[in-house]
Amino acid sequence: MVGYVVYGRSSFNQLDEIIAPHRIEGKPMIFLVDHFFEDKPFLARIPIRGNDQVFSADVTHEPKTAYVDELADHLKEKFGMVSGIIGIGGGSTMDLTKAVSLMMTNPGSSADYQGWDLVKFPGVYKVGVPTLSGTGAEVSRTTVLTGPTKKLGMNSDFTPFDQIILDPELTSNAPVNQRFYTGMDCYIHCIESLTGTYLNEFSKSYGERALELCRKVFVKKDHWDDESDDQLMMASYAGGMSIAYSQVGVAHAVSYGLSYLLGIKHGIGNCIVFDKLEEFYPEGVKEFKFMVEKNKIDIPQKITRGLTDEQFNTMINVSLGMKPLWENALGKDWEKIMTKEKLRTLFEKL
Amino acid sequence: MVGYVVYGRSSFNQLDEIIAPHRIEGKPMIFLVDHFFEDKPFLARIPIRGNDQVFSADVTHEPKTAYVDELADHLKEKFGMVSGIIGIGGGSTMDLTKAVSLMMTNPGSSADYQGWDLVKFPGVYKVGVPTLSGTGAEVSRTTVLTGPTKKLGMNSDFTPFDQIILDPELTSNAPVNQRFYTGMDCYIHCIESLTGTYLNEFSKSYGERALELCRKVFVKKDHWDDESDDQLMMASYAGGMSIAYSQVGVAHAVSYGLSYLLGIKHGIGNCIVFDKLEEFYPEGVKEFKFMVEKNKIDIPQKITRGLTDEQFNTMINVSLGMKPLWENALGKDWEKIMTKEKLRTLFEKL
Repeated sequence: MVGYVVYGRSSFNQLDEIIAPHRIEGKPMIFLVDHFFEDKPFLARIPIRGNDQVFSADVTHEPKTAYVDELADHLKEKFGMVSGIIGIGGGSTMDLTKAVSLMMTNPGSSADYQGWDLVKFPGVYKVGVPTLSGTGAEVSRTTVLTGPTKKLGMNSDFTPFDQIILDPELTSNAPVNQRFYTGMDCYIHCIESLTGTYLNEFSKSYGERALELCRKVFVKKDHWDDESDDQLMMASYAGGMSIAYSQVGVAHAVSYGLSYLLGIKHGIGNCIVFDKLEEFYPEGVKEFKFMVEKNKIDIPQKITRGLTDEQFNTMINVSLGMKPLWENALGKDWEKIMTKEKLRTLFEKL
Repeated sequence: MVGYVVYGRSSFNQLDEIIAPHRIEGKPMIFLVDHFFEDKPFLARIPIRGNDQVFSADVTHEPKTAYVDELADHLKEKFGMVSGIIGIGGGSTMDLTKAVSLMMTNPGSSADYQGWDLVKFPGVYKVGVPTLSGTGAEVSRTTVLTGPTKKLGMNSDFTPFDQIILDPELTSNAPVNQRFYTGMDCYIHCIESLTGTYLNEFSKSYGERALELCRKVFVKKDHWDDESDDQLMMASYAGGMSIAYSQVGVAHAVSYGLSYLLGIKHGIGNCIVFDKLEEFYPEGVKEFKFMVEKNKIDIPQKITRGLTDEQFNTMINVSLGMKPLWENALGKDWEKIMTKEKLRTLFEKL
């Protein structure tokens, strides 16, 4: 788990003080900042000292192993070693930061470590400062990467951040649609884990709490205010913790196929898929549709129209490869329930 | 925060494997086991290797600084250094383990470190295995000790366990009264923190969740089963986490006075006090009395009868010394509300 957690409005102001003891003489701190903040006044708040450097994280696409390797190689070439890496941004920036930190000390390519417990050495000191709430990437022990052959995380005990700073003020300027899609990532993974076959009281506790907080924000409340930011940030944290002993389900399995082929981002991809999953999650999907309408959000439709059989097959194969997700959702006999034909019909609905 | 958390029924069986990478050649692992388990078959499950040693932790009284120093000195004399200390037991054993671990590497007496951020060096590897749920000591950054001049914890970033193993099976044989008192420690600190003036969404989230779980166990359910153990263990964990950004209140302040003078243990002391706090926590106390009756528990009465004025004054002084607790409960002007006379009347009711 993340060793140090600071939570609070304006806690970002403590960043300079928090990272100070981790500075190594002559080695810079690297601030990897979501490109969303390019040209924004927020950049002036980053506590740069000495040869520290701010990099804009290009998160137009979700992180690729090639991009992780490129960033790590560049840092090694330029500085030899760095004091630490501070990621500031959404889920993609969080994952990118964790992965680059690990690749500063582990040989080869990040693609070599896509899987479970393959990482050999702790990375450099890494700090996560989320500016969007919902993915849970700030607390998870993975970092989802798209590699040459698969979309899979570097899951390891070395992957979690050393420190996170949860400052709900930083999420207050997020675009409304993006905020909703990312918030729904949390909502959907709670529904998937709470209705799944893998679950214990630890994950249930966190999952139920995250769900309640999502409902406070998106179902009960009629406007967005500071409390909404506070609560959604805690929902994201609790949702991330709940994954420790549970697993996601149908929406994530299908949306991985979608994003692998079409590059659709995780938050919106989950929404596109979940919208059509009445059969598997009847109550969750009903509430989801209510939230979509209440919050006046557009969910893209008919995005798979016109795809070739080969393209459908690619999505189907990626999706069916996520065995633990299907087993969690549908039980041991999932392959009898979710046949290729049935999944094709589902993809055609999206 | 605690870096490694394992939660699950029978997870205690993983202890041997979990501690293996932390073994240092020739240096033993020390198992500090609540004296409740003396002569119980459970002892045979402790994964002893090489020169490992099992110590019975005498928790007749809550941990004293002198006892901590004695244990640490003994270990240093006998082994020079140890690989780690594994505490197995209730809140007192958890606190004792954390304190002894710190005193293996910090010079002087543990009494020198009662306060905030006075500890200078990380302790030896320490693992907490709670066998009673409610105190939150398994996750807190303190260890409450009674010293020559005060009852105060060693609060520091070095205090939390490196690893905890939350196995609800281990709590299933706890005596019914003790289980209730310790569970109420969690319930009471949630009521105190949620109605207090120090609170943010982080602590509120954990506190509300812990409270819900306490209610499931002690209010809604008509019998005790495995699920009750699962839920109370999570309540304790969440309650402990909620204290990170909040503070306890009147019950804890008064019960500290009581335990300082009379040696009354924390769980039962809180119950004795909370039972008389209608004025401050009307709804909480009403629900508490319902739980007491429903669970057929005796709350001792009239325990301060016959005490001298000097004894009352000792309790009053210890209690009024807990300034942050009073301020959290009653606001900045607490001294105008909780006068010595008023507190004397309250102590007389107990």
